[in-house]
Amino acid sequence: SRFEYVKSYERDDSLLPGTYIVVRIDGRGFHRLSKRYEFTKPNDLRALELMNESAASVMNQISDIVLAYGDSDEYSFVFKRSTQFFGRRECKLVSTVCSVFTACYVYSWSKHFACALESDMLPSFDSRAVLYPSSKELRDYLSWRQADCHINNLYNTTFWALVLKKGLSEKDANKALEGTFSSDKNELLFSEFGINYNNEPEIFRKGTVLVKTQPVQSIENTMSERQKARATHKNAKIEIEQLHCDIIGNDFWEERAYILE
Amino acid sequence: SRFEYVKSYERDDSLLPGTYIVVRIDGRGFHRLSKRYEFTKPNDLRALELMNESAASVMNQISDIVLAYGDSDEYSFVFKRSTQFFGRRECKLVSTVCSVFTACYVYSWSKHFACALESDMLPSFDSRAVLYPSSKELRDYLSWRQADCHINNLYNTTFWALVLKKGLSEKDANKALEGTFSSDKNELLFSEFGINYNNEPEIFRKGTVLVKTQPVQSIENTMSERQKARATHKNAKIEIEQLHCDIIGNDFWEERAYILE
Amino acid sequence: SRFEYVKSYERDDSLLPGTYIVVRIDGRGFHRLSKRYEFTKPNDLRALELMNESAASVMNQISDIVLAYGDSDEYSFVFKRSTQFFGRRECKLVSTVCSVFTACYVYSWSKHFACALESDMLPSFDSRAVLYPSSKELRDYLSWRQADCHINNLYNTTFWALVLKKGLSEKDANKALEGTFSSDKNELLFSEFGINYNNEPEIFRKGTVLVKTQPVQSIENTMSERQKARATHKNAKIEIEQLHCDIIGNDFWEERAYILE
Amino acid sequence: SRFEYVKSYERDDSLLPGTYIVVRIDGRGFHRLSKRYEFTKPNDLRALELMNESAASVMNQISDIVLAYGDSDEYSFVFKRSTQFFGRRECKLVSTVCSVFTACYVYSWSKHFACALESDMLPSFDSRAVLYPSSKELRDYLSWRQADCHINNLYNTTFWALVLKKGLSEKDANKALEGTFSSDKNELLFSEFGINYNNEPEIFRKGTVLVKTQPVQSIENTMSERQKARATHKNAKIEIEQLHCDIIGNDFWEERAYILE
Ligand SMILES: Nc1nc2c(ncn2[C@H]2C[C@H](O)[C@@H](COP(=O)(O)OP(=O)(O)OP(=O)(O)O)O2)c(=O)[nH]1
Ligand SMILES: Nc1nc2c(ncn2[C@H]2C[C@H](O)[C@@H](COP(=O)(O)OP(=O)(O)OP(=O)(O)O)O2)c(=O)[nH]1
Ligand SMILES: Nc1nc2c(ncn2[C@H]2C[C@H](O)[C@@H](COP(=O)(O)OP(=O)(O)OP(=O)(O)O)O2)c(=O)[nH]1
Ligand SMILES: Nc1nc2c(ncn2[C@H]2C[C@H](O)[C@@H](COP(=O)(O)OP(=O)(O)OP(=O)(O)O)O2)c(=O)[nH]1
Ligand SMILES: O=P(O)(O)OP(=O)(O)OP(=O)(O)O
Ligand SMILES: O=P(O)(O)OP(=O)(O)OP(=O)(O)O
Ligand SMILES: O=P(O)(O)OP(=O)(O)OP(=O)(O)O
Ligand SMILES: O=P(O)(O)OP(=O)(O)OP(=O)(O)O
Ligand SMILES: [Mg+2]
Ligand SMILES: [Mg+2]
Ligand SMILES: [Mg+2]
Ligand SMILES: [Mg+2]
Ligand SMILES: [Mg+2]
Ligand SMILES: [Mg+2]
Ligand SMILES: [Mg+2]
Ligand SMILES: [Mg+2]
Ligand SMILES: [Mg+2]
Ligand SMILES: [Mg+2]
Ligand SMILES: [Mg+2]
Ligand SMILES: [Mg+2]
Repeated sequence: SRFEYVKSYERDDSLLPGTYIVVRIDGRGFHRLSKRYEFTKPNDLRALELMNESAASVMNQISDIVLAYGDSDEYSFVFKRSTQFFGRRECKLVSTVCSVFTACYVYSWSKHFACALESDMLPSFDSRAVLYPSSKELRDYLSWRQADCHINNLYNTTFWALVLKKGLSEKDANKALEGTFSSDKNELLFSEFGINYNNEPEIFRKGTVLVKTQPVQSIENTMSERQKARATHKNAKIEIEQLHCDIIGNDFWEERAYILE
Repeated sequence: SRFEYVKSYERDDSLLPGTYIVVRIDGRGFHRLSKRYEFTKPNDLRALELMNESAASVMNQISDIVLAYGDSDEYSFVFKRSTQFFGRRECKLVSTVCSVFTACYVYSWSKHFACALESDMLPSFDSRAVLYPSSKELRDYLSWRQADCHINNLYNTTFWALVLKKGLSEKDANKALEGTFSSDKNELLFSEFGINYNNEPEIFRKGTVLVKTQPVQSIENTMSERQKARATHKNAKIEIEQLHCDIIGNDFWEERAYILE
Repeated sequence: SRFEYVKSYERDDSLLPGTYIVVRIDGRGFHRLSKRYEFTKPNDLRALELMNESAASVMNQISDIVLAYGDSDEYSFVFKRSTQFFGRRECKLVSTVCSVFTACYVYSWSKHFACALESDMLPSFDSRAVLYPSSKELRDYLSWRQADCHINNLYNTTFWALVLKKGLSEKDANKALEGTFSSDKNELLFSEFGINYNNEPEIFRKGTVLVKTQPVQSIENTMSERQKARATHKNAKIEIEQLHCDIIGNDFWEERAYILE
Repeated sequence: SRFEYVKSYERDDSLLPGTYIVVRIDGRGFHRLSKRYEFTKPNDLRALELMNESAASVMNQISDIVLAYGDSDEYSFVFKRSTQFFGRRECKLVSTVCSVFTACYVYSWSKHFACALESDMLPSFDSRAVLYPSSKELRDYLSWRQADCHINNLYNTTFWALVLKKGLSEKDANKALEGTFSSDKNELLFSEFGINYNNEPEIFRKGTVLVKTQPVQSIENTMSERQKARATHKNAKIEIEQLHCDIIGNDFWEERAYILE
């Protein structure tokens, strides 16, 4: 039709080849949402398990995702460097990951929470893509997220101990922690509440890592339909391992060199 | 931390000011999904109403969307030209619209369908943004989608009449329609099935238009917090009208000049 | 060869259709360069005429440029909204304009300056593209540049009068002008130096506008080679008018409605 | 002024950190230009030397360029991976390299050519940027250009031998070479003209490589002004070596590991 020219206004948004694509989703307004649905403070295990289940569902459906890392209301998905999924089109990747995640989160909510979702506050997520040219930068990205998880969790654990166990107002708890270092919070937790932070559950302290246990087969344009089908089939059977371990040090990566090829 | 430099790898993806932003979502693999959940052929009213409800929910939550148009498994959302929502960041807009839509679609499914969603085939959507510099191009965009709706629907109506009413195989129905023009299909529908295509429900022939019934207030950075709150409050009360009318001609637009400012 | 895959790393950088493309070039380090070649202060007519000649040369070679505006060490080139020059590829447009301008500037230098260029300080320019969706914004862009020309020129005229005629040091002249308004500078010029700023040459106060005196023919992909050749030939004969008039008000534009179509 | 908002329409075009930036310039319409100025066929040493001098001038002025490779009417400039030159802004890099190159080319023309440039056909160049995430891809890029140089030069050498020495028309020479392999052309050159292609000048067969003989100092934002000045000063003294050697194999790179860090 004479209107079709408008299609040409779409921009080609393919992402630079040869780089790791990370798609990170993050809950929209989970500060408010976690209040409405009365998430446990500071960490709600039901919420985390729902996040993890949704992330696993994304990884199962998108075979080129080799690793995912999540904590709080966010999850990062790492594509293999050579992925040609959706021709590396940014909006396609960003929206598909986000939509699949959201669908699973809403669908599986009732499996994890006794209270029902309310139509005026449904969970939703934003999503973005970031490129990392080398495995060094990719690992630093994941370290950044895990270090952030640690910092937030130590703070939140101490904060909510002061509020819920010691009865401080949120304002006073906040003030009490102003300017403190990690070591201060560790000591405070131990001296005031008998909590050894290192004994807190790893899922809270380290977040969650999902990894494919085997290398993902590439689907190349040069392959026959049969070869493609076989590779797709193989990929579908690769299992996902759920861990709450350190990914900042080298051990995790040395044991799984195939992830970064 | 020493890892924070990785944040700087995020690209600034703000969209050109002064243009209309259209975000279009489209169901992923709805060919397969509509079979699994046994959508009525060629048009499933339950599915369309679920789409419309989800689109209305997006419009309610994102005040700068002034119009939406949808048919089949897709919906286009038009932002006011001057929107500063999320600083016009492409990935934020694309993912937020998509996630809010998905959440509502999954959540409201059971209100429209008797059969339950199955965990191995949840609905999800992709999403993209396109810019149109002038109202002429924006209108041509919407005309393109509505013309597409018409073409597809006329084809599908005839195709499924041949299959379901006349007993042709899908292959034969396809062949019968090869090379036919609109007029041929109109005649075929009438002569063979006594169907006057123009009497088919408008929701099938024209798709669905959602419009805000009043101009949306701009939220400017120069406004005080109080002014912002008042504008936001006003916007929240603007109602959404659901129509199945022609948007290719001028009438619709002349009656609603405020939509394009 | 097995290396050709690297070509695919080139990004598609086509600019949004339907918008005005402005390419602005600006002299690199002309503060230093104007000292080395002893440009007259505050305005060197030879330098301005060399800029204008180079800009005209760009306009002559690139038929889709319909207007150019320049002052100081910068020039802005406006492409017709529908241009398909180089498929609207940003880097092609930005670099071609810049290179043609530079070539002419270096080549024609000796026509305007008695002193020769020195190999350790050749003139060069940077270049960028900006998109404007409507004629309103395009005109505001040009108004911005012309208003900037005025502000700088009034300042520079007063500054150099204080230094060269009244014998102030640059530091003292600077201080004398701190916090002054336009009206203050006008009065100072008049009372101290008997200069009526409005009588200063228009080329200094208004900059230079180059316009094609007739509408530029579009070269469409649907045209035959012969039609294309004829249009190209016609475009080549369109003359360029050089003006030093106001382009902020409406008069200029009303007389030349064809420029913005 | 009220016009300043138009500045915000400029897009942030910074290139992804951590990647090699290659800027390639290429002569505009050198097919025609080489005829007008009667370049020697197939290779004009004066033209090549002018290209090399202009490229060296670019390298001298832009300290973060660590290597350049050129042949025919093109030159590729490789920035160090960590460059912060112009904040990695694409248009700035593309236009500056192009303009400095053009200025030198026009300025130095008369040093290499007896005939003068004519104002209706001045040399100019286009320019683009491409990103390569790793040294493998960067080397493949350079290999691609050098392999291209070889293929073109072998073809041109044979073609012009047939035309200039054997008296074939250009059309017949073209036909004679249709479908031939490298080995065919080598043999033809030897049997018909007694030319051993491997004895042809290396500058024709391999193109030209310009390398900085020492690692370039980084200018970091965290450095003091004094440290920056010292680094800049050091960089300015680094010499440029001109070579016509193979850069596809490993030797060149192993001897100069510092180039790719
Ligand atoms: N009580 C509780 N709150 C949680 C839990 N996980 C996340 N949250 C809350 C704490 C934070 O307020 C919020 C996550 O912070 P964000 O920076 O993502 O902010 P939020 O989602 O509110 O805004 P955003 O839309 O992302 O800008 O979610 C949890 O397990 N328990
Ligand atoms: N039976 C039935 N099918 C529908 C209805 N609405 C949409 N569909 C189906 C028909 C098409 O096969 C499909 C929409 O076409 P698309 O081009 O979006 O393809 P699909 O979603 O399969 O793939 P995609 O992931 O978008 O590339 O959805 C409906 O109301 N009834
Ligand atoms: N004396 C004199 N100087 C001029 C004339 N036209 C331009 N200039 C000088 C004054 C300014 O210092 C400089 C233009 O300012 P810019 O902001 O473009 O700075 P500059 O080119 O030094 O640095 P840049 O590389 O553009 O960031 O050129 C002239 O006619 N006479
Ligand atoms: N005779 C002669 N011609 C040369 C020499 N170096 C380059 N050329 C000519 C041969 C080619 O026709 C042309 C370079 O090919 P290009 O693909 O860059 O084409 P051209 O510059 O004409 O068009 P363009 O504007 O780059 O698309 O320059 C030389 O040393 N001698
Ligand atoms: O979302 P946050 O708070 O982690 O921080 P951000 O990514 O810097 O902010 P934004 O979501 O606006 O990109
Ligand atoms: O999704 P379609 O089939 O309407 O067509 P498209 O938009 O051209 O395809 P894609 O989803 O790949 O952009
Ligand atoms: O070049 P200037 O000084 O006019 O100002 P700018 O355009 O803001 O700076 P830049 O050249 O760095 O884009
Ligand atoms: O310029 P060429 O001929 O080497 O080839 P290209 O780079 O594919 O073409 P363009 O200059 O149009 O990008
Ligand atoms: Mg955020
Ligand atoms: Mg959040
Ligand atoms: Mg968060
Ligand atoms: Mg699609
Ligand atoms: Mg679909
Ligand atoms: Mg569809
Ligand atoms: Mg500048
Ligand atoms: Mg300048
Ligand atoms: Mg300037
Ligand atoms: Mg080219
Ligand atoms: Mg060329
Ligand atoms: Mg070339």
